Amino acid sequence: MSPTVAIVAPGSMGAGVASCLNAKGATVLTSLGGRSPASRQRAAAAGMRDAGDNALAEADFLLSIVPPAEAVALAQRLAPALAAGSRRTIFVDCNAVSPTTAQAVADIIATTGCRFVDAGIIGPPPRPGSTATKFYASGDRASAFSALNEFGLIVRVLDGPLTAASALKMSYAGITKGLTALGAAMVLASERGGSAQALKAELAESQPELLRFFERMVPPMYGKAYRWGPELDEIANFVGTEHPESAMFNAAARLYEEIAADVAGDNRKTAILDSFLKQ
Amino acid sequence: MSPTVAIVAPGSMGAGVASCLNAKGATVLTSLGGRSPASRQRAAAAGMRDAGDNALAEADFLLSIVPPAEAVALAQRLAPALAAGSRRTIFVDCNAVSPTTAQAVADIIATTGCRFVDAGIIGPPPRPGSTATKFYASGDRASAFSALNEFGLIVRVLDGPLTAASALKMSYAGITKGLTALGAAMVLASERGGSAQALKAELAESQPELLRFFERMVPPMYGKAYRWGPELDEIANFVGTEHPESAMFNAAARLYEEIAADVAGDNRKTAILDSFLKQ
Repeated sequence: MSPTVAIVAPGSMGAGVASCLNAKGATVLTSLGGRSPASRQRAAAAGMRDAGDNALAEADFLLSIVPPAEAVALAQRLAPALAAGSRRTIFVDCNAVSPTTAQAVADIIATTGCRFVDAGIIGPPPRPGSTATKFYASGDRASAFSALNEFGLIVRVLDGPLTAASALKMSYAGITKGLTALGAAMVLASERGGSAQALKAELAESQPELLRFFERMVPPMYGKAYRWGPELDEIANFVGTEHPESAMFNAAARLYEEIAADVAGDNRKTAILDSFLKQ
Repeated sequence: MSPTVAIVAPGSMGAGVASCLNAKGATVLTSLGGRSPASRQRAAAAGMRDAGDNALAEADFLLSIVPPAEAVALAQRLAPALAAGSRRTIFVDCNAVSPTTAQAVADIIATTGCRFVDAGIIGPPPRPGSTATKFYASGDRASAFSALNEFGLIVRVLDGPLTAASALKMSYAGITKGLTALGAAMVLASERGGSAQALKAELAESQPELLRFFERMVPPMYGKAYRWGPELDEIANFVGTEHPESAMFNAAARLYEEIAADVAGDNRKTAILDSFLKQ
């Protein structure tokens, strides 16, 4: 029988996941209260149906896909409905959060009698048939979540502790989003130091794969920088303040905050980055 | 006529550069006072001859190739001999230092009546005939330094301010040595988080060129971490504390200090890195 999957929220990732499930016949619910007309249109296009929290809590799976800073608040909001519901819904935290934050969500879900799976999404918002986006899942109930492999998702179950999937997501994103920050930082500094053109030529000569990484990753980052900041702070939390390298990720978070402010402001920094990468 | 080139100190980079110059007929002097038997042997093998500071100051070119923290002190030590010398030796600061530090060296050399070139070396210690190692040079006198293109070096003159070569070196090294630090940080954290094996598999699948970068760069870093710490602090200085991303490089410096302590200590961290990268 086709499952019912609740996805909160219908952002670009949530709607992408919904479109894959919907194309395979799953019923997809979401929560449209307070969402913009654009979100409502995106949700409708992905085959998502609006539902109240009580109906969401009766789904077979409830996927939390929100910005990192909202993961705990969403679990808290849904906890009463999950506790009052008639079934033991599988709550899947798919967010880019540290194992500590994932554990806090797990603890909230444990009080409801529902079941918890930790997941980490690696890849862009998927479309039906695409294979670039994977859900890594950990915890006792991860294999139950992997039933959605039959319904358009790629779910891979990890060995390891309950929060291994969040640890994987953090360590992978720390590399890719950390490197994107390093590239942006060094382009901006080399522009100030009068060496930007020479840096580009030297990268093209001796590190061409890194230059291609920056060309591919830096411009699409501008519009996501507002949520990469909190995600990089989660990565620093994952590393732990007792390890001094954690401050690399806090500093990258501050850079992303500045880029986000630049996007909303005078575009001075993003113009420098564009002129380096696109020239 | 073949030039006389003084190189201080005869470390692995200095001796490599000397061997290239020597193979093309240049006379290479160095300073062996207080150096270890291993350094003396390496210098002799590279064709370097021991000389006092006064003789070094009479060379056509004097190349400063020392750990970043020693760049200013070496210029201060040689300044009296340069001032007392009979000719306007070209002093080339080849160190991985910030433009601010390079300017401090330039200011010291200016008081001696000698001439200053800022340089940045990109690549490993060279051997005669190798082409992977380049000297980028900036400042009014950079074209005079490029005469050593006829004597086994690859010297490229940069447009831009006096310290453009240091800015280039900092921005390039900030990317490569920053990324090496990111990789080490995330391998260590994923090991603690129980996701190391999954991280390696995911990198191999979706970021194979970054995994190869770590395999190539991380293990050879262990023995150099003691000087990469100060170099990363120079890179932070290059970025400037008014830019919050500068703290990424200070934090990387602290990680390199911990790796250096680990190399001298119980090798616990380096064993984890090796088991990830070499398995």
